[in-house]
Amino acid sequence: MSDAAWAHVCRSMEELRALAGAVNLLSWDQETYMPPRGAAARGEQLAALQGLGHERLVDPRLGEALERAEAAPGDEERRAALAALRFDRDRAVRVPVALVKELARSQSRGVQAWRTAREASAFARFAPELTHLVELRREMADALGVPPGGERYDALLEGYEPGMRVARLEPLLRRLAGWLAPLADRAASATVEDGFLRGRFEAGAQWDFTLELLEAMGFDLQAGRQDRSAHPFSTGIDPGDVRLTTRIHEELPLSAIFSTLHEGGHGLYEQGLPERWRGSVLGAAASYGLHESQSRLWENQVGRSLPFWRHFLPRLAARFPSLAGVPVEAFHRAANKVERTLIRVEADEVTYNLHIVLRFELEVALLRGQLQVADLPAAWSDRCAALLGVRPARDAEGCLQDIHWAWGEIGYFPTYTLGNLYAASLFAAAGRDLPGLEEEIGTGNLAPLLGWLREKVHRAGRTLPAEELVRRATGAGLTDEDLRRALTAKVERLCRT
Amino acid sequence: MSDAAWAHVCRSMEELRALAGAVNLLSWDQETYMPPRGAAARGEQLAALQGLGHERLVDPRLGEALERAEAAPGDEERRAALAALRFDRDRAVRVPVALVKELARSQSRGVQAWRTAREASAFARFAPELTHLVELRREMADALGVPPGGERYDALLEGYEPGMRVARLEPLLRRLAGWLAPLADRAASATVEDGFLRGRFEAGAQWDFTLELLEAMGFDLQAGRQDRSAHPFSTGIDPGDVRLTTRIHEELPLSAIFSTLHEGGHGLYEQGLPERWRGSVLGAAASYGLHESQSRLWENQVGRSLPFWRHFLPRLAARFPSLAGVPVEAFHRAANKVERTLIRVEADEVTYNLHIVLRFELEVALLRGQLQVADLPAAWSDRCAALLGVRPARDAEGCLQDIHWAWGEIGYFPTYTLGNLYAASLFAAAGRDLPGLEEEIGTGNLAPLLGWLREKVHRAGRTLPAEELVRRATGAGLTDEDLRRALTAKVERLCRT
Repeated sequence: MSDAAWAHVCRSMEELRALAGAVNLLSWDQETYMPPRGAAARGEQLAALQGLGHERLVDPRLGEALERAEAAPGDEERRAALAALRFDRDRAVRVPVALVKELARSQSRGVQAWRTAREASAFARFAPELTHLVELRREMADALGVPPGGERYDALLEGYEPGMRVARLEPLLRRLAGWLAPLADRAASATVEDGFLRGRFEAGAQWDFTLELLEAMGFDLQAGRQDRSAHPFSTGIDPGDVRLTTRIHEELPLSAIFSTLHEGGHGLYEQGLPERWRGSVLGAAASYGLHESQSRLWENQVGRSLPFWRHFLPRLAARFPSLAGVPVEAFHRAANKVERTLIRVEADEVTYNLHIVLRFELEVALLRGQLQVADLPAAWSDRCAALLGVRPARDAEGCLQDIHWAWGEIGYFPTYTLGNLYAASLFAAAGRDLPGLEEEIGTGNLAPLLGWLREKVHRAGRTLPAEELVRRATGAGLTDEDLRRALTAKVERLCRT
Repeated sequence: MSDAAWAHVCRSMEELRALAGAVNLLSWDQETYMPPRGAAARGEQLAALQGLGHERLVDPRLGEALERAEAAPGDEERRAALAALRFDRDRAVRVPVALVKELARSQSRGVQAWRTAREASAFARFAPELTHLVELRREMADALGVPPGGERYDALLEGYEPGMRVARLEPLLRRLAGWLAPLADRAASATVEDGFLRGRFEAGAQWDFTLELLEAMGFDLQAGRQDRSAHPFSTGIDPGDVRLTTRIHEELPLSAIFSTLHEGGHGLYEQGLPERWRGSVLGAAASYGLHESQSRLWENQVGRSLPFWRHFLPRLAARFPSLAGVPVEAFHRAANKVERTLIRVEADEVTYNLHIVLRFELEVALLRGQLQVADLPAAWSDRCAALLGVRPARDAEGCLQDIHWAWGEIGYFPTYTLGNLYAASLFAAAGRDLPGLEEEIGTGNLAPLLGWLREKVHRAGRTLPAEELVRRATGAGLTDEDLRRALTAKVERLCRT
């Protein structure tokens, strides 16, 4: 009896994965190759597939099969799959279909209003839609259920970072801001000569160098590919089909490099998910924060390190002779230049998390009702000045810079900082486990690091909560100590040389 | 009441179209950008989406809504939509799910066996799978229902060319073969000097020229795109999103040109389907044969004509200076060289239909049980010698050359010849309706022809049967007279000059 139930659960999981894979491919194509006039039909295709996926997930027959399978759960792996599917299904079932549809409509209107508002730098044009979106997210949080002793924000956070709570994030981010701000001051005082990064760096040669990087990272181009898009992203259709994009600016040669390292890190995680879970809910990342840790680790811990550039600067200079005479220390300094600026996506490794603290504080306040949407620009401006030491002259450079809220995504931003923290802790643990890791990186051998990540992170899929997985890999849970240590050492070095 | 029923029907049609669009994109990606290791998951995604589409089409709730809507059908357009949906649904309902699944499995095994067999040129390795596939197609024909006075083949033909029957095709193709064979002899006697087509024609310049052709044809690159693939094909995801592919051989400069004209012709049909039918069963081609008529018309009637090359040869020569001195008549002769050869996809305009007659005869005999699969190679060899005057030395160049039977596609081949016949008749009618058409083509103005096709063919979608549509456009139904007249005139001209 329970065998039949488990078989039903497996068929459902396979269908859900197939639908999700199709959605991911359609979304990838939308940003890469779709002709402009295909947009309307694409919207309908995505809505239809997502609707079908939701319908299958909440199907009462799946609910019955799941209950029967849970009654005789079998081995550990099966138990983990049942728990993960239960998690997804319960969240899907709890939100009324009417609310899902209203949210979809409002997101679409929200993004349109946000684009118009950002172009005109006029927050008022976006405010009504954002007010409605915040209201819908509050309703959604109530429908999902606020955890005991928690608050609405926790119910949303649970969708990105299962188990995480405002009560843990608030003190953590406060402490983080406490040491990041003076560190940013110290770092900004370092002299950075980066004139060699000015000029024109031909797109084709940049592209070839990013492919060289992907190959060095161990990204399997038989099981994935890189293309160009306006905003870099990555998507895992299957461990055998992982799509990355990068963005090339001919005047900003570091942009494509760090985009590729970042998206390549996401891609390695997706390629490292066990193939036997292709059709299972377990063949996925443990959390958004853990996913981000993989991109940040390759972008920052590896890609902004001195050993990395010892190996790769001569290779880059082989493609761009103007860099031939640049000392590696000077290049490393330029790749780590710290500045107090307004735009999150252009921020350096030190100030980046201050941008996240700003957004987290404001969205928690919005959801609690402590901050009204109309007061957001002023609040943004004040907190930005306090945290980052700069004040936006226009909303377009302030609270209108990110698309997340226009999508109604509230609770997403902290996963960026969780990713930075996990990345630092994982890299520190890899360094302890793998003596000579820096030397290997310095010779361009990134395989030992990838092997460690495969074993400690990728191959677990969704069998463990993110923090538990990190604890097993590093010996400790979520902490800002490793990032503090690494960034402090880096800044000291930059100020010394 | 019937409004609610019609609304249900409309929602179902929209969902079916969205699923079909997703399937088409996934299939396009499979042949263009998918990394090799993505194949397994892609197979699962396609199977899941096709399974969902089938499930929706046979859903009893749709059946009830359709019946209620048919009871109060409304205007002509609605009646046409209900009839087309009824046609699709009845065919889907009649075939047992077990047979559909067995066919899908056997197709997949069939294609694998065919590849192995073709590589080794050993038909025996493919024979068991083909025997099973023929058996399944006979079962399917019985399930679909043989039309009164007809035979099993008719039931399959109905899926590609509704209304067409063996009883009409047999005498038509016999007559066609009767005049094509002597015409091919006559044409093959013409002296053709094509040394200027030898050498290396750089891929990038070829690519640019194919885009120039698409633009001249009126293919909207905001509503579609061209990419490269091993085997050229086209797919309509939406009138606003039509994907073409072409294949470039640096030593065969005509290959990409005629591939692009051919696929571009298909693409113009898809782009010309009315946008208001985006979510309706009417927003599709009337038949496979009619679709093929659009590709053949641009490839042969336009692309192999003297006026066309008067305009485009200088443009081609601007990209390939080695062609600069070639007289347009000589180029036109080279583009129309007739040879009795073994391979269908490389055949010229005159002998092409003889390849189809061969396949049609054999597959009808297979389905009737008059020919056993084991005897296919010998039968192929004999009929090939009789029809084309050449005999394959190896099965790979004979009955193993096409993939169609490996897919279990029986009844598809005649649509190629129907396309050629309809193309000739439509082009002749366009010439009568548009005085000066040849002169316009000779100046590179292809817009009047496209306008005529839009009005007479594309904009009707699936509201009329293919032959009825052709009759309204040309004044006559299916006939080989127009093709005979055009090919005879062309061959006489080639033999004269």
